[in-house]
Amino acid sequence: MEVTRKSFKDCLNLVYTAVEEADFLAIDGEFSGISDGPSVSTLTNGLDTPEERYTKLKKHSMDFLLFQFGLCTFKYDQNDSKYITKTFNFYIFPKPLNRSSPDIKFICQSSSIDFLASQGFDFNKVFCQGIPYLNKEEEAQLREQTEDRRSQQANGVGTPSFISPSSSKGPANVPDEHMGYINRVVEKVEALFASTDKTIDLEPCTGFQRKLIYQTLNWKFPKGLHVETVEVDKERFIQVSKVDEEEKKKMEQQKLEREQCQLNDAVGFSRVIHAISKSGKLVVGHNMLLDVMHSIHQFYCPLPEDLQDFKEVTMCVFPRLLDTKLMASTHPFKDLISNTSLAELEKQLNESPFKAPRTEAAQGFPSYDTAKEQLHEAGYDAYITGRCFISMANFLGSFLTPPREYVSAQSKLVEPFYNKLFLMRIIDIPYLNITGPDLQPKRDKVLYVTFPKDWKTSDLYQLFSAFGNIQVSWMDDTSAFVSLSQREQVPIAVNTSRYAESYKIQTYAEYVQRKQQENEKQTPASKSWTEDRWLKSPYMSSGSSGGFGYPRALRKRGGSPITAEKGSTEAADGWSDYSFSDSTGSKKKKTDVVESKTSEGWLNATDATESFGSSPMKSPDEDGADLAKDAEGTLGWHQASASKATPARKSPKNKKKSEASSPSSLFEVPEVW
Amino acid sequence: MEVTRKSFKDCLNLVYTAVEEADFLAIDGEFSGISDGPSVSTLTNGLDTPEERYTKLKKHSMDFLLFQFGLCTFKYDQNDSKYITKTFNFYIFPKPLNRSSPDIKFICQSSSIDFLASQGFDFNKVFCQGIPYLNKEEEAQLREQTEDRRSQQANGVGTPSFISPSSSKGPANVPDEHMGYINRVVEKVEALFASTDKTIDLEPCTGFQRKLIYQTLNWKFPKGLHVETVEVDKERFIQVSKVDEEEKKKMEQQKLEREQCQLNDAVGFSRVIHAISKSGKLVVGHNMLLDVMHSIHQFYCPLPEDLQDFKEVTMCVFPRLLDTKLMASTHPFKDLISNTSLAELEKQLNESPFKAPRTEAAQGFPSYDTAKEQLHEAGYDAYITGRCFISMANFLGSFLTPPREYVSAQSKLVEPFYNKLFLMRIIDIPYLNITGPDLQPKRDKVLYVTFPKDWKTSDLYQLFSAFGNIQVSWMDDTSAFVSLSQREQVPIAVNTSRYAESYKIQTYAEYVQRKQQENEKQTPASKSWTEDRWLKSPYMSSGSSGGFGYPRALRKRGGSPITAEKGSTEAADGWSDYSFSDSTGSKKKKTDVVESKTSEGWLNATDATESFGSSPMKSPDEDGADLAKDAEGTLGWHQASASKATPARKSPKNKKKSEASSPSSLFEVPEVW
Repeated sequence: MEVTRKSFKDCLNLVYTAVEEADFLAIDGEFSGISDGPSVSTLTNGLDTPEERYTKLKKHSMDFLLFQFGLCTFKYDQNDSKYITKTFNFYIFPKPLNRSSPDIKFICQSSSIDFLASQGFDFNKVFCQGIPYLNKEEEAQLREQTEDRRSQQANGVGTPSFISPSSSKGPANVPDEHMGYINRVVEKVEALFASTDKTIDLEPCTGFQRKLIYQTLNWKFPKGLHVETVEVDKERFIQVSKVDEEEKKKMEQQKLEREQCQLNDAVGFSRVIHAISKSGKLVVGHNMLLDVMHSIHQFYCPLPEDLQDFKEVTMCVFPRLLDTKLMASTHPFKDLISNTSLAELEKQLNESPFKAPRTEAAQGFPSYDTAKEQLHEAGYDAYITGRCFISMANFLGSFLTPPREYVSAQSKLVEPFYNKLFLMRIIDIPYLNITGPDLQPKRDKVLYVTFPKDWKTSDLYQLFSAFGNIQVSWMDDTSAFVSLSQREQVPIAVNTSRYAESYKIQTYAEYVQRKQQENEKQTPASKSWTEDRWLKSPYMSSGSSGGFGYPRALRKRGGSPITAEKGSTEAADGWSDYSFSDSTGSKKKKTDVVESKTSEGWLNATDATESFGSSPMKSPDEDGADLAKDAEGTLGWHQASASKATPARKSPKNKKKSEASSPSSLFEVPEVW
Repeated sequence: MEVTRKSFKDCLNLVYTAVEEADFLAIDGEFSGISDGPSVSTLTNGLDTPEERYTKLKKHSMDFLLFQFGLCTFKYDQNDSKYITKTFNFYIFPKPLNRSSPDIKFICQSSSIDFLASQGFDFNKVFCQGIPYLNKEEEAQLREQTEDRRSQQANGVGTPSFISPSSSKGPANVPDEHMGYINRVVEKVEALFASTDKTIDLEPCTGFQRKLIYQTLNWKFPKGLHVETVEVDKERFIQVSKVDEEEKKKMEQQKLEREQCQLNDAVGFSRVIHAISKSGKLVVGHNMLLDVMHSIHQFYCPLPEDLQDFKEVTMCVFPRLLDTKLMASTHPFKDLISNTSLAELEKQLNESPFKAPRTEAAQGFPSYDTAKEQLHEAGYDAYITGRCFISMANFLGSFLTPPREYVSAQSKLVEPFYNKLFLMRIIDIPYLNITGPDLQPKRDKVLYVTFPKDWKTSDLYQLFSAFGNIQVSWMDDTSAFVSLSQREQVPIAVNTSRYAESYKIQTYAEYVQRKQQENEKQTPASKSWTEDRWLKSPYMSSGSSGGFGYPRALRKRGGSPITAEKGSTEAADGWSDYSFSDSTGSKKKKTDVVESKTSEGWLNATDATESFGSSPMKSPDEDGADLAKDAEGTLGWHQASASKATPARKSPKNKKKSEASSPSSLFEVPEVW
């Protein structure tokens, strides 16, 4: 259902009902651009820290406009075993409420606009019919202004709550040059009292003059008058009416209601976000970090400087999130899904071993034809995202004994994926953990290389040709991260470069230290992100061997007693990457990643199918069944039946053998998410 | 005629012809916004210097997109005594040419977008069908890139001009990891030679791989092959064809032509500006400074830092400009025209004493119905602007003896208005003089006042209540210029403020000096704008008494012998403001201006009808007639007949009396433009 400025008010109750009754919600946003400065590959450097990534996105992506918001609500119909969907496609535009409201500026990126144009995006609907919005602060300001104006205009009798301490009860202090004008107004009002007319309209005048008129009339005629500012065709004038006390009260009341109504209109689309927020329902999105950031930034509050504060705000606005791109990139899905872009994901999830979810549009809501793709219309994308989630959630039910066809959004099976937002293209930190500390890989095979401006990726390959396979992550024209395959090569590389003139090689630790020093110089007492936090995080030291930052208590170990009991070989089949082993456990990262050689090619590959080595599973399933707790309260997965294994899955490997192959792993990846 | 990306190529020759045959051109642009920072009233402060204004517009207005460009060509048809018009309405959008072309970001201001939306502006046409463009530098870069690519790909035989010194003639230096790939390509090409096929398409690959393929194939197969990169659906791949030398040459030629064609497509709309520029025709606009700045910035070159450099660039791009808002704000028009906004101007110029111009759309060009306004469509606005110019130019003919109905765009009568661009809301500098030094009022009645943030205009009126009428020009929240009515009050005001704590008063000279010092600190050796130039301009010292900056030789004096002879009283009737008197000549500025009291109200009034005291007339009319030179080669205007005076004109005043009333003038305004 398309929702524009015109239809918004009428639709709002539909939205409220849909959110209230839903089992889960799916959202998607379309923006006027992605990056106002660095190229997208610089914006999403493969070795960003979560703090760096957040800071960059906040700095370079938030001045674009989220101008289409898709919301699809999913309600499970137990009887028919299907989801009833209600899809809303909102057009958003910060139309200034009046001449004194903020005049929002936003950036457009021509490639993004051109892309949307090629998808048939309707810009006219956005700019001519977009729903306005206010964030919490703007809303509060507007309410305050309205209250102030009301106090100023209060007649001084009958309604004491309307009188602010500052409102003048004496005669207005009218500057000389306005005296004549004000006197003429008073004469007109006196003439009104003498005539049979009930109302007069004064000429349009300035805000200052209006203030003087209110003050003077309230003082001179404390009773029997109702004075109100009316706006017609953007011109404001004062309307004066003769009234008795009864009428006066009624008119004041009506005015109050009108103002309240205008105020709600101004808050506009933000009310939808408030409703989502208040519902506490699971909100599903695909690669949703930017959607979440934009939604908060535009409809809630300016984004905080600090990542930790952002996480807290996010939990206020969206208490439960799930990112289908992260889910699809994680076991047990990652080996079954070759491309996690939304369009490809939806296609794959309609085929074996997955099942196309049964959904049906609610009455009065147009149904989408998934065969005829309408991708990049936010409502459709939200709908598709929700369907992807259903397919994947239900697939998790196949691991239960007996298998279940339907797994709810509230299922413990789904919980491990909550509040982890996919991080685009970061090679060793798959997600932003909204409700906990982020993963902290050591990056001890990473070099920071600076070089002349004309160097290309091939020059870096040439430079490191003696070291075998490398990964290049460009920083800017003259620097890049280069990841070697073996830690032992690092000192050799650094040593060699001592004699080089055109380039310079530092370890990742040296790089971080230098940046930290620079940061300290620039913002000595800043609360904002520093590598300091990153390096000296308490989670760092409290972690065990592997160098990953989870406090001991949060760490999970695989190979639960029950799993081991039931059949250790079978359980491990196809799950070698999905281990809950200790940090010495090997990951297949290397072979997955280093095939594509150029930085760009590699990043694309990473984007399409991240090869993350573990699963966010960590809680016991409410459905009990074949999943069981280990001694530390952790779950081991049991593959329900060997017949379920599809050709897409990897060939069986012995888990222990896999654990033993540790030295070949390119990066240490977290064993448990 | 609407011109979009699709129709542009076919329309271009029409445009060229229309420009070539035209007597004059009118232009108009629509932008995605006006100011990305300060409010419009701050951006157009009433006491800006031309340098300040230029600097502010450059800084705060150029990141918006000029996304609709109107061009209307006017050709006079002597036989039918009418103009034949050709109107083009171009939609403009910087669609990226390919993945490596610049990805332009532009700002949208919601109030501007909302305004255009309310006028029925078609944003979809802009974003989906806008014509691309390149500035001169981007064009040169693209040509260079094309040339480089051609050199790299050159086969090394037959066409030596294609070989750049850097192109490798030996075997390509193929990195190990690409060796296998390249060898497979070579095998495929060898197979092509052995087969009956004429062409093979290689798989899509990276730019680096393409480079290696070109190098290798050129070296291995110097003859008999044509290798070319083809792009289909944004994927690039290499096509290899078996050819004999004849075919090869032909294919190279075709490729060259295709590239040239693509290049011209990329230059796109800029070619229209080039054509206008080359034609040297008079270009008419209404309040056209921003149109000119945007046109140069977007289609020609980044705007220079320095105003003087901007003037020079402007003269390259638009050798002859005329601003109808400036013309309408100047004698003999200013007393006849109460509102110089384009819509109002057009209405007034259709009525007595003016005559509606006779225009007719050329065959094949849709004609506009001026009764059914289509304002703010750039093509229509350009058309209306041209019509306004014609009315005003022809009106000048009524002062000739015998009067003339038709005055051409090349007439000496029009020349005084050339290259003077209206400066919005500056109270004492009506225009930016593109071909000469700008006016330099002394501003010795102006105070610079700083005060607490909560002060309003009324507080300033209160503060200066002892000094009579004042004008307030807000700088920002805590400072404003206050113009007193008498110079003698200045030291008194400054003196009084010595004991003030909350506010501070400085003279304008002190303010300028301080700013100058600050500037010097910031940019010690900068060539860019400083008040220094402003104050110490050579024109300052060479000028005579009045303090205005024209060198003696450029100064004009009024009261030509002939005018005086013919009847001094009549000539002065209704023309008291339009004097060529010495700088002691009084201007009626005061009474025109100080009626509206709030800064905003005043600025609006100024905007609508500037009350400039003089006329840009300065050259003898080619038509001779009743306009005559004075001793210094200056023209005095003779009012053709008293019966021409309309009720709109001011009541007759004695010129000499008016001159004598000098002390009452609020600002010294330039006596001759």
